[in-house]
Amino acid sequence: MIAGIIGATGYAGAELARLLSGHPEIKKLALSSVSYEGEQIEDIYPGFLGRVSGSLLKAEDVISSSDVVFSALPHAVGEKYAAACMEKGIHYIDLSADFRFGSDEDVYSAWYGKMYQFPKLHEKSIYGLVELNRQKIKEAALQGPLIIGNPGCYPTGAALGAFPALAKGLYGGGTVIIDSVTGASGGGREPSRTFHYSECADSVLPYKVASHRHSPEIARTLAQMTVMSGGSKPSMQVIFTPRLAPLNRGISSAIYIPLSYAWRVTQDNEKPMNAAMPPSKEIEEKTLEIRRLYADFYKNDKFIRVLPAGICAATNRVRHSNFCDISVHIDLSGSLLIITTAIDNMIKGAAGQAIQNMNIIFGFDEEMGLKTIPMLF
Amino acid sequence: MIAGIIGATGYAGAELARLLSGHPEIKKLALSSVSYEGEQIEDIYPGFLGRVSGSLLKAEDVISSSDVVFSALPHAVGEKYAAACMEKGIHYIDLSADFRFGSDEDVYSAWYGKMYQFPKLHEKSIYGLVELNRQKIKEAALQGPLIIGNPGCYPTGAALGAFPALAKGLYGGGTVIIDSVTGASGGGREPSRTFHYSECADSVLPYKVASHRHSPEIARTLAQMTVMSGGSKPSMQVIFTPRLAPLNRGISSAIYIPLSYAWRVTQDNEKPMNAAMPPSKEIEEKTLEIRRLYADFYKNDKFIRVLPAGICAATNRVRHSNFCDISVHIDLSGSLLIITTAIDNMIKGAAGQAIQNMNIIFGFDEEMGLKTIPMLF
Amino acid sequence: MIAGIIGATGYAGAELARLLSGHPEIKKLALSSVSYEGEQIEDIYPGFLGRVSGSLLKAEDVISSSDVVFSALPHAVGEKYAAACMEKGIHYIDLSADFRFGSDEDVYSAWYGKMYQFPKLHEKSIYGLVELNRQKIKEAALQGPLIIGNPGCYPTGAALGAFPALAKGLYGGGTVIIDSVTGASGGGREPSRTFHYSECADSVLPYKVASHRHSPEIARTLAQMTVMSGGSKPSMQVIFTPRLAPLNRGISSAIYIPLSYAWRVTQDNEKPMNAAMPPSKEIEEKTLEIRRLYADFYKNDKFIRVLPAGICAATNRVRHSNFCDISVHIDLSGSLLIITTAIDNMIKGAAGQAIQNMNIIFGFDEEMGLKTIPMLF
Amino acid sequence: MIAGIIGATGYAGAELARLLSGHPEIKKLALSSVSYEGEQIEDIYPGFLGRVSGSLLKAEDVISSSDVVFSALPHAVGEKYAAACMEKGIHYIDLSADFRFGSDEDVYSAWYGKMYQFPKLHEKSIYGLVELNRQKIKEAALQGPLIIGNPGCYPTGAALGAFPALAKGLYGGGTVIIDSVTGASGGGREPSRTFHYSECADSVLPYKVASHRHSPEIARTLAQMTVMSGGSKPSMQVIFTPRLAPLNRGISSAIYIPLSYAWRVTQDNEKPMNAAMPPSKEIEEKTLEIRRLYADFYKNDKFIRVLPAGICAATNRVRHSNFCDISVHIDLSGSLLIITTAIDNMIKGAAGQAIQNMNIIFGFDEEMGLKTIPMLF
Repeated sequence: MIAGIIGATGYAGAELARLLSGHPEIKKLALSSVSYEGEQIEDIYPGFLGRVSGSLLKAEDVISSSDVVFSALPHAVGEKYAAACMEKGIHYIDLSADFRFGSDEDVYSAWYGKMYQFPKLHEKSIYGLVELNRQKIKEAALQGPLIIGNPGCYPTGAALGAFPALAKGLYGGGTVIIDSVTGASGGGREPSRTFHYSECADSVLPYKVASHRHSPEIARTLAQMTVMSGGSKPSMQVIFTPRLAPLNRGISSAIYIPLSYAWRVTQDNEKPMNAAMPPSKEIEEKTLEIRRLYADFYKNDKFIRVLPAGICAATNRVRHSNFCDISVHIDLSGSLLIITTAIDNMIKGAAGQAIQNMNIIFGFDEEMGLKTIPMLF
Repeated sequence: MIAGIIGATGYAGAELARLLSGHPEIKKLALSSVSYEGEQIEDIYPGFLGRVSGSLLKAEDVISSSDVVFSALPHAVGEKYAAACMEKGIHYIDLSADFRFGSDEDVYSAWYGKMYQFPKLHEKSIYGLVELNRQKIKEAALQGPLIIGNPGCYPTGAALGAFPALAKGLYGGGTVIIDSVTGASGGGREPSRTFHYSECADSVLPYKVASHRHSPEIARTLAQMTVMSGGSKPSMQVIFTPRLAPLNRGISSAIYIPLSYAWRVTQDNEKPMNAAMPPSKEIEEKTLEIRRLYADFYKNDKFIRVLPAGICAATNRVRHSNFCDISVHIDLSGSLLIITTAIDNMIKGAAGQAIQNMNIIFGFDEEMGLKTIPMLF
Repeated sequence: MIAGIIGATGYAGAELARLLSGHPEIKKLALSSVSYEGEQIEDIYPGFLGRVSGSLLKAEDVISSSDVVFSALPHAVGEKYAAACMEKGIHYIDLSADFRFGSDEDVYSAWYGKMYQFPKLHEKSIYGLVELNRQKIKEAALQGPLIIGNPGCYPTGAALGAFPALAKGLYGGGTVIIDSVTGASGGGREPSRTFHYSECADSVLPYKVASHRHSPEIARTLAQMTVMSGGSKPSMQVIFTPRLAPLNRGISSAIYIPLSYAWRVTQDNEKPMNAAMPPSKEIEEKTLEIRRLYADFYKNDKFIRVLPAGICAATNRVRHSNFCDISVHIDLSGSLLIITTAIDNMIKGAAGQAIQNMNIIFGFDEEMGLKTIPMLF
Repeated sequence: MIAGIIGATGYAGAELARLLSGHPEIKKLALSSVSYEGEQIEDIYPGFLGRVSGSLLKAEDVISSSDVVFSALPHAVGEKYAAACMEKGIHYIDLSADFRFGSDEDVYSAWYGKMYQFPKLHEKSIYGLVELNRQKIKEAALQGPLIIGNPGCYPTGAALGAFPALAKGLYGGGTVIIDSVTGASGGGREPSRTFHYSECADSVLPYKVASHRHSPEIARTLAQMTVMSGGSKPSMQVIFTPRLAPLNRGISSAIYIPLSYAWRVTQDNEKPMNAAMPPSKEIEEKTLEIRRLYADFYKNDKFIRVLPAGICAATNRVRHSNFCDISVHIDLSGSLLIITTAIDNMIKGAAGQAIQNMNIIFGFDEEMGLKTIPMLF
């Protein structure tokens, strides 16, 4: 099978090329690049020498020669390639935000500054968070060529951490806060002052606080999760804060979820726990209970690891893998669930998740080509 | 004037030595170390060669030869030195947690595992967050020798970000969440696996989530701030999550404070703003208003910089300084205040703040010895 | 086939476990650890969860249940396991220095402080630099169980860079200088001040200058290379300087080799080039010629990449791979060859090279299990 | 006194502004910037808020209002400002390469691609390596306004390490090799792929091997040192290799100097030491002797620290200071001197050294404004 990558020289595209080169079902890659058309991918990424090779074509030529197409273009420029793939009858997996909002064109256009060019395509597109939409993707793939809106990196780490709480009635309403710390590879390959080594090394920088465009994607996904699990659409307020830290890969998210009345830990007489004191036995036990609930919820999701008690979700334990690690905590007063998650933003947060989608669509083993083992160092 | 440092070879002690060596009123240092008694500080820290020099003495000899004593010992071992200083009649500034809890011995002992040895001393000790207790420290210093409990690094960045909101009625009750990302120097000088380069480089690690012993200090300080500003003691729930990121110095804190009814941003008919949409003009204007309120609140605090709109509080902009940078945001729904702060954990979060306390006590210019300019890179 | 790893919880051992878990011919691992006997490897390395699993046994039990044994123990403690493997009749690949010196016991003992315990074993051991000894290893493996002294990380990067120059008469005698910059993973898993994050981040530290015990290994290997290529044993003086830089993986080596008369670039009248001026056309042409010679020399070595002109050997282009990248330069005066090499010290410099040896020994494809693609970021 | 900085918004210019703001004799700064004319320096560098402030002027206005002018412009654009300063009668300290080559216009133009615009100015300019030319600068300053060519960062670390060996007859002829590892701040403020965080973090990259334009400056300076010390101009071949490592500030240089016959360490019968063996007692003793010679040579140079035996020159021990640390080694064969040096490339390698020149010129204490204490972490 030939896999095409449109926009193969950006970081997400190159990571796709790297991972797909080791995928047993992919015999060949077709790569495109506007900036480097006619050059070889291994001249742009000399690390690929002897392992990944290929001329950089036009996007149209990638589509015509491929059996599945991944698009790793910037936002708002690739819809026409989705249309071309549908016309040809092949699946299109888009790593940009263009197909993540379905029929919510108003939200998309408010944040990305552009109306839909092919509104019909968005109606049929599926949000490619496999752990949420696996069944839907499987079934739709039997009907014809799909458009997958591959989730954003932050929304992936946030939604996977919140899903069981939302689905199982732990969430008690009120504000859900997601505070994420990310590495620099998320900023892409183009040099800029923010990602200039001397400016971002040895520093932590909050940015786009309360105004990052992954906010509506996160809110939309959390709401969908609740509805899909049988809840009514919640009037959920979601707050998202990103910070840039000096690492290459990885997103660490802390997710604060108010517990429903039934799940709160209380002292006698319904009083909350004394938050001035160290974690009580009750809190420790409830934490273990929720941990088990999380583990059970994800028992068939091979890329989710609900960590043993006492182990926090560090990004270097998922680096270079498609895993999302999750650890479960309850605050000292017993009323808030604190979930921390870790993903490799370039793999589970981008290229790996896209391949996971491809595996589902084609009926391959979901882990195929994605069984890399995390590199601690 | 001779300044003594007990525990001078740990990171906080050495940073004190570094900064005090440039303080115009300090003519000499007296240094102690249990581990390196009899050696020279510049043999332990060769970077000091030609700049800071001194034999490492016994703690008792430091006290007997000093006019003011800083203690940079681990928690729960230094109370007797405070007692000795009081007996001698000299001020004692303690960088450990031992004197941060005043008469709340139950809270201290629950978290630090030790009862007070000299309970009377704690009654008279003052929590050395200058921006909160400047006047109290000044006045008490006129009465006799003081014991200052120098604040913890996390509590400093958290409390300074929340203070104006608490003091000016912006806080509307409910849970205050503090999510802090810290550099490795806070872990001190002793090697351990957590701070082993290969284990913490290129990674973000949440740790002691909902169980860090700075939690009660933060909660206590926020409550005091509210009371001191004329509010009634709030039933405030405070949640604190620390994460370790690969940088040397710096703490970036995000502080989530529910806004009081009066300060919320609403659409017509009192409806909250539509959080699915980008920041509204109303939110931007209210953010500027709160920013001005913050700037006004701190107008006499030389080490607090409320940043211009559009500039986030990055740790490399305060590195190597005693500044606490603050930036102000409101979430998309208009109902939560999001404050981000940045401090150098070794300076404003430890040694610098201790010297700021000394300056207040002795009536020196508060900035004396602390006018370093941040190093961007 | 079952592979055993003695000392599986150190960094080299864990990296072996990680790589061997993806090796098509290895069906199972048997792991030992003195420190963690009875525990699970995935509890020590939580990143392994769901990918690598196994109880930590005694070394003896690893040997009895394995078809090939890797030893990743510290120096000078593992000879008896080599003896046990020989007795059992299975191959033993030792990542420590114990079997790198063959019959030069005096050199080994002078640097490692211990005499050989089983001198006979050293006579038959082979230095496992595959690019030098591939044929020898292949042939010996047909005769019976082997002991491989897997090369040190620095010697690997140094020797591979010098080999063609020594073998093809480019070396003109005189001092060969190797200046290597390494990442922190080479220091192993045990915490120490040198590798404490705050002490080694954001700094470059030369260490053991002119006294590192990889010096004699490098010198010995370069001499062997010359002899094996038909030269007489040179009176070669080799200088080796290591420096620690703040990265996880990677060794960058610069190798300075005086050119023989025939290979020098000269102006007319045999005068050396004017070194005050930018590189001349003659130097550029000769550089290309030597580059071609290098590429030709290594044309059958799949893990050596002689880089195109203009591309330097950066460690992030080999990270996570078994490649050794090489770039070729001539100094401005035309009389010295400057080779730079880059390896991943944990893979080509340790675990990967050990597996490469196993592949040769068992007649597997030399690249089997080692076709990972470098991660740029 | 008013100090002017032309090109104040680049890294070197901003570092000058930072350091000069703390200089007791500088009452005011006048700053220029082409890119940001009319803006405030603290808007470009928000870290300066409350400490360094100033409108960015035209270069001409800086000159007209200053008593001394520093130029931190790129190469080959600032000669006219030197001319203007001479006309006005004020000193001009140039941090670019423009005035480092004196009358060697051919060398300068070959490497920097431009002929001199005002050749006369170059005749009177002085190379501002204070440890070499202190007396010359002092005397010339009495005669009238000076032009100082402030040394490059690499040449500073290289030349200071070699000076005593050249001056005292330790150098025995032959090739001197300088291998330097630098941090990213040397690349300046403009974003580029080389200094893009994801491309340079966690990696070591050799670049411009045998073709960096600091090569001729280093060679020229080493030759001058030899001549000034009474030697005849040596036919010295100098090789320089730079490598980029992931740190902010700092240059670590290893300098390989063949020892003269008189200084070599030999066994009986004039045979070189056995380089296969660990350092001999003779080598250790000779190393100490040379160390003493170095310490004595620099005994009046306050910014040079010849480190005690056993301590290597790490860049974090000079970070944020004007120190050049030096450690002394001899190779195992006893025939080569290996010097390692460490400087902060932005201070001793740029802004600090420029201020040191100003101090000399104006007769201030040479350490004035430069007594910062290195920051270990």
